[in-house]
Amino acid sequence: MSESLFLGIDGGGTKCRARLRDANGTLRGEGAGGPSNIRLDPDLVWHSILTACREALGKAGLGEADLNRTHVGMGAAGAGQTSAVERLLSRPLPFASFVIDTDAHTAWLGAFGGGDGAILIVGTGSCGYGVVGGKRHYVGGWGYEISDEGSGAAIGREALRRTVWAYDGRIPTTPLTQTLLAKFGNDPELLIDWVGKARPSDYARYAPTVLDHAKRRDPLGVALITDAATGLAQIATRLLDLGAPTLCLFGGLAEPLRPWLPPPLQQAIVQPTADALDGAILLAQANVAEA
Amino acid sequence: MSESLFLGIDGGGTKCRARLRDANGTLRGEGAGGPSNIRLDPDLVWHSILTACREALGKAGLGEADLNRTHVGMGAAGAGQTSAVERLLSRPLPFASFVIDTDAHTAWLGAFGGGDGAILIVGTGSCGYGVVGGKRHYVGGWGYEISDEGSGAAIGREALRRTVWAYDGRIPTTPLTQTLLAKFGNDPELLIDWVGKARPSDYARYAPTVLDHAKRRDPLGVALITDAATGLAQIATRLLDLGAPTLCLFGGLAEPLRPWLPPPLQQAIVQPTADALDGAILLAQANVAEA
Repeated sequence: MSESLFLGIDGGGTKCRARLRDANGTLRGEGAGGPSNIRLDPDLVWHSILTACREALGKAGLGEADLNRTHVGMGAAGAGQTSAVERLLSRPLPFASFVIDTDAHTAWLGAFGGGDGAILIVGTGSCGYGVVGGKRHYVGGWGYEISDEGSGAAIGREALRRTVWAYDGRIPTTPLTQTLLAKFGNDPELLIDWVGKARPSDYARYAPTVLDHAKRRDPLGVALITDAATGLAQIATRLLDLGAPTLCLFGGLAEPLRPWLPPPLQQAIVQPTADALDGAILLAQANVAEA
Repeated sequence: MSESLFLGIDGGGTKCRARLRDANGTLRGEGAGGPSNIRLDPDLVWHSILTACREALGKAGLGEADLNRTHVGMGAAGAGQTSAVERLLSRPLPFASFVIDTDAHTAWLGAFGGGDGAILIVGTGSCGYGVVGGKRHYVGGWGYEISDEGSGAAIGREALRRTVWAYDGRIPTTPLTQTLLAKFGNDPELLIDWVGKARPSDYARYAPTVLDHAKRRDPLGVALITDAATGLAQIATRLLDLGAPTLCLFGGLAEPLRPWLPPPLQQAIVQPTADALDGAILLAQANVAEA
């Protein structure tokens, strides 16, 4: 029973997913756990990882005794931060091997199977990543204060900015500004109080409203989504200029925003070969091959 | 010795200034105190106010016994917030009378002596205010997260955003992006760490660097300052559209940004008749006249 197993983990801020394949690549099981952005408390992150991992093993009829023949690869939000990785790995691990990289890297690995290409992740934040000739390139993704163009947070925040402009009479009101102000009891003071406490994910909750109005040709909605698409195109275009032949889109806002991207960029978009979990499995396999 | 005295106070986040005039309008003395944004602790604010007030009385050879014939008018940052005003006034006051209004209102009173007109304040934040036919209009000034276009904070933040774009290769580097990145040891990670803790006044510290480069025709500096001027023009134009015949500029960035404002707006700009401290004295006088 010494056949190797490979487990891929996709670790994010709200949940952790795991997928188990055997040495032949046969799917054996999947599992899920809690938050696992590795900037979080290491005990919490390990609890999430092991929960997801045990659930995947359980689905395969396997258990605790099989951990030591399981090679794990993890793509995780926060893994670009060396200190967070070191903190996470400062304990004995039950696995045959363990390797961690950024969630962007495992998404790219899954999408292109290790070949040249770029990905654009668009959710609450936004980030571009590509690998060309073995060289990694990160573009954008520096956080919502001065980066993350085209993200849900950026779209929501700009929409609220324009809502205040409309209230001031600086631009015409539109159904979008009316809808957004109504969410704050038509009281800009309440809106500003809310802004004082808002996190990126709070702003991002308004992105679907903006998208809905853009689809219905609300002039402000169209302007905001066009701006977002322009910001995303700037990130993606840089990755293509760096030599990435094609681009895959990821994240909750990728599909709704895709039709708004400029036509030249549309032509570079391809479907990913596999997802980030299979990318994490590839990461585990490459790690074993290197060792 | 029952002749009335009038004291004007200009209360801001870092300091408090006071000016004393007698009933003939003769300048009797000036004084200064500490922070007096009235959203701050009321004990602190009163300490600042009384320090400035006593210094002004002292310059006039007057003292504590003269407080009860002194009518005080105060223009203060934060005075638009009713709860802060109520908290400040919930104690017995030593003055003959006391009236408070926003710092924008006293700036306008001083600038136009109570006549129709608008002001544009540009410092760390930005705010437009005008009074037309007795009706008040606030435009902008909702805070740096989703407002304060053209402010020092907005200019600084956008400059750092473009610096990251240039680092990513999304736009060409310019002397401005090089200068700004060098301030963070040419390490965008250090820049992002700084951003995580930055307050509007921190961002605003980079506005003079942007202005300097704009003057030297740095293409990014010119673009950023032109954007700032466009945002300010939008605020000012709204106030003119509401019926304000002319506009006065206030704040530390007003003069450096003035040459960048669009020509039609330039023609509406006039010099203020008096400053915000004399505006606060007018406020005190009007309050007595109404009583």
